[in-house]
Amino acid sequence: MEIIQIVGYKNSGKTTTVAALLQHFSKAGVRVASLKHHGHGGIPEGFDSKDSKIHHDAGAVLAGVAGEGLLQFVQDAHWELEQVMQIYKTLQVDLLFVEGYKKANHPKVVLVNEEADKALLTELSNIIAIVSNQFLEKENLKSPIFKQDELVDLCNWIWNHHWKKKE
Amino acid sequence: MEIIQIVGYKNSGKTTTVAALLQHFSKAGVRVASLKHHGHGGIPEGFDSKDSKIHHDAGAVLAGVAGEGLLQFVQDAHWELEQVMQIYKTLQVDLLFVEGYKKANHPKVVLVNEEADKALLTELSNIIAIVSNQFLEKENLKSPIFKQDELVDLCNWIWNHHWKKKE
Repeated sequence: MEIIQIVGYKNSGKTTTVAALLQHFSKAGVRVASLKHHGHGGIPEGFDSKDSKIHHDAGAVLAGVAGEGLLQFVQDAHWELEQVMQIYKTLQVDLLFVEGYKKANHPKVVLVNEEADKALLTELSNIIAIVSNQFLEKENLKSPIFKQDELVDLCNWIWNHHWKKKE
Repeated sequence: MEIIQIVGYKNSGKTTTVAALLQHFSKAGVRVASLKHHGHGGIPEGFDSKDSKIHHDAGAVLAGVAGEGLLQFVQDAHWELEQVMQIYKTLQVDLLFVEGYKKANHPKVVLVNEEADKALLTELSNIIAIVSNQFLEKENLKSPIFKQDELVDLCNWIWNHHWKKKE
């Protein structure tokens, strides 16, 4: 399973970028999936954990609830990317787009929305592409830069220069 | 990984029984987990699937959201027990207590709350124990019967006659 991370600050367009990539790759027949990480946001909104909490408190290392196409888990520890990746592998996913988990070392698309976001370009490892409308000094960057309205070009570039090379 | 199903109609005490079993086995050092199936109840309450829905609609075979100890997935199809079991195996669970998925063929504890629930005892396969305050004709039943206030005895019986035999 290949992983591509989509990294950027709040409201930098992560969900839209992941949606564009999912659409591009799924249309091409790739078994794609997504994972969004609530880094600082705490628990996902609206989670109903009444029964899960009873089971968790009684000693379940993992308390799950399934209904139709939805599945929810509660565990003690924070969900680490490596642990969640194992689940996607189990479900025969070919390519996983991950929003967040910035410190992991998978290939990354970095979204630079504001001047202050530029720091990400030096802080993060394994950057394969950049999406930004900001002026960036290209000579210091090894990765191609796409404007925020060039997501189709980003998808094509990732397909040709990253995905196809791996196959 | 071993599986024991806890089966019964709504309000028959499934969650309480699973909690008692989780407590008993976790105290004994077993890596236990639980799974609750919303059979007819539709999707679990309060599920926030805004971003997951965007990703699912864009073609993700699996759209996940992780935050602290919570993890939620959306997929197209109903979650089958076999598929969810793979996830618990990945997370090194030794013993999984499952509420629901009545038609599966794992060892079952059947909860008989009302007269009408007795039909479960002939309909279901692989019954290892029964919890009921109803009068049941013991001669027709191969499994031990526990009263609803004898959950400690149920736990001990499952530990001695089911779990220990497997080890």
